[in-house]
Amino acid sequence: MFEIIAPLEKVTPEFVSELQSKIDFKTKPLGSLGLLEEVAFKAALLQRSLTPVFSNPSIIIFAADHGVAEEGVSLFPQVVTEQMVLNFLNGGAAINCFSNQHDITLKIVNAGVKADFSAVKHDHFINSPIANGTYNFALQSAMTAEQCLAAINKGAEITQSQFEQGCNVIGFGEMGIANTTSAAAIMSAILNLAGKQCAGKGTGIDDVTVSLKAKVIDEAINKYQLNDADTLTILQTVGGFEIAMMVGGMLKAAELSMLVLVDGFIASSAALVASELNDDFLQYTQFCHQSEEQAHQLLLTNMAATPLLNLGMRLGEGSGVAVAYPLLVSALTFLNEMSSFADAGVSESDE
Amino acid sequence: MFEIIAPLEKVTPEFVSELQSKIDFKTKPLGSLGLLEEVAFKAALLQRSLTPVFSNPSIIIFAADHGVAEEGVSLFPQVVTEQMVLNFLNGGAAINCFSNQHDITLKIVNAGVKADFSAVKHDHFINSPIANGTYNFALQSAMTAEQCLAAINKGAEITQSQFEQGCNVIGFGEMGIANTTSAAAIMSAILNLAGKQCAGKGTGIDDVTVSLKAKVIDEAINKYQLNDADTLTILQTVGGFEIAMMVGGMLKAAELSMLVLVDGFIASSAALVASELNDDFLQYTQFCHQSEEQAHQLLLTNMAATPLLNLGMRLGEGSGVAVAYPLLVSALTFLNEMSSFADAGVSESDE
Repeated sequence: MFEIIAPLEKVTPEFVSELQSKIDFKTKPLGSLGLLEEVAFKAALLQRSLTPVFSNPSIIIFAADHGVAEEGVSLFPQVVTEQMVLNFLNGGAAINCFSNQHDITLKIVNAGVKADFSAVKHDHFINSPIANGTYNFALQSAMTAEQCLAAINKGAEITQSQFEQGCNVIGFGEMGIANTTSAAAIMSAILNLAGKQCAGKGTGIDDVTVSLKAKVIDEAINKYQLNDADTLTILQTVGGFEIAMMVGGMLKAAELSMLVLVDGFIASSAALVASELNDDFLQYTQFCHQSEEQAHQLLLTNMAATPLLNLGMRLGEGSGVAVAYPLLVSALTFLNEMSSFADAGVSESDE
Repeated sequence: MFEIIAPLEKVTPEFVSELQSKIDFKTKPLGSLGLLEEVAFKAALLQRSLTPVFSNPSIIIFAADHGVAEEGVSLFPQVVTEQMVLNFLNGGAAINCFSNQHDITLKIVNAGVKADFSAVKHDHFINSPIANGTYNFALQSAMTAEQCLAAINKGAEITQSQFEQGCNVIGFGEMGIANTTSAAAIMSAILNLAGKQCAGKGTGIDDVTVSLKAKVIDEAINKYQLNDADTLTILQTVGGFEIAMMVGGMLKAAELSMLVLVDGFIASSAALVASELNDDFLQYTQFCHQSEEQAHQLLLTNMAATPLLNLGMRLGEGSGVAVAYPLLVSALTFLNEMSSFADAGVSESDE
């Protein structure tokens, strides 16, 4: 699925060496820009350019509803998914503020919200629901195999469309009441972890509800024998339409050598699925922040991911990507604009 | 020294309550913007406004040389301080890239570099050296009492000047070969810590040199009996001109209710001195990043500071402030622009 023509493997050792030298001979102690140096290195490799640039940065918010919300795993009523989509379209959400701040193109996708958006017309709205929410995976598989595949393909198509509009750096965010339960179930199934290691407070549920959430997850893993299942079956059984669309969108972005920016816990569960489906995928990703959601750190560790930020945020909707974006720009800025020791006539170290 | 008319104490409980409500009723789960909510709260309190704005954001780089460089505690030759000042003025350093990126005004101050800058004319250069570098504190006190006071007052004057140009958020950075030794000695003296707990790798020295650095610090603490000394004596004895100017600049900024942005290890040592001189000072500060310099975490912990970033940077020159600045803007952006639940017609939580 989605053949990634990994540019990292096609890059010559000479290019890698020239790139590392360019970074090392900037007027700064060796390695002193830390993670910004790694980001610059990755972006340059993906673009196979010593002067990489970001063009038309975009964040796609995939919104969907979850049947498992019926189990009482969320603090907010399900109607909030629909209401927040309208809030995104009206420009009032956190992600609107942050993407405006950084001139990031924002697209809102109805991936399967339990609402009728057919009358909504908006330049940044993509109305392509797979269904009116998933089924409750406590009772039956969240999606059919056809729905899961349709969602993956739709996500890929949306990324392709952004690519054709000149985008080479794309962030993935989401909105969906109860979707931390779905993300935690995916994590539990793929990484063979107990529900309680994966379930967190989401938007702010109490400890009793966290325990319920963990129980719902454990029962589903057991009911569908997901620890032995293949990745697509896991996605289909306990995933969500927004998660499946993110999987397809992320893999297509990697195929197109775009830099994939991952938001919080739910987007990271999609990245986990993508990394299971394609071994090269993680080379194309930058995790933008560590969420306050308790299992996110473990999930990131399992992907050997170092996120840019750890601000105690837990909002989703791509907000971590947008807030982190200027740091990515700083990485390219230093690579492209800073003087070398030779240019500036600055002495190197005594070593 | 520098009477701070703490606005935090003058703010009415009604204002605090109204501010917290404004933050809490934005369309997001309670507290879900993490540290950004704390930054917004702090900035609003300092400005005593529910709609705080940053105006003319500025970073001041104070550069100076250190007599203690003679002890062989640094990787780079002392002439690099002068060369980097010229690099700043020519726009080739990391801080130039990052402050350009965010439209931050950058000022470079010769606080006491071992070089003659009298011929240099540049709009952003302030040539006000206290002397051609400090004395080697391994042999004698780094400064005289008069020099130390002159540096503090000069720093305050520079902040005052920025304030008069409409600046209400000011970052403090520095450049000075061997100044991690000076900063570590200040930390050691004030916090009663051994030299080895405070000495780090600086620009990249090896373990043997780190041990030498710790020994130089321990001997100075002992020689001048600094663990029993008052704060100004410590600053005078093992400090540097750039550190003393930062102390004065930071305290004046707090006096003027400006938000003080602190860069890395050396700027944090100045903040430590400022916090010892005035109990209210830390209410006015935001620490921008945790440096890779090993003692920085302990120093921050001692000030109960939560930095915005932890990117493994260790460059100084205000770079951590500049890279973190857009996060501060994001904090004000959400406070000023995001819709409330009522505005957006979004349901609140079920609790």
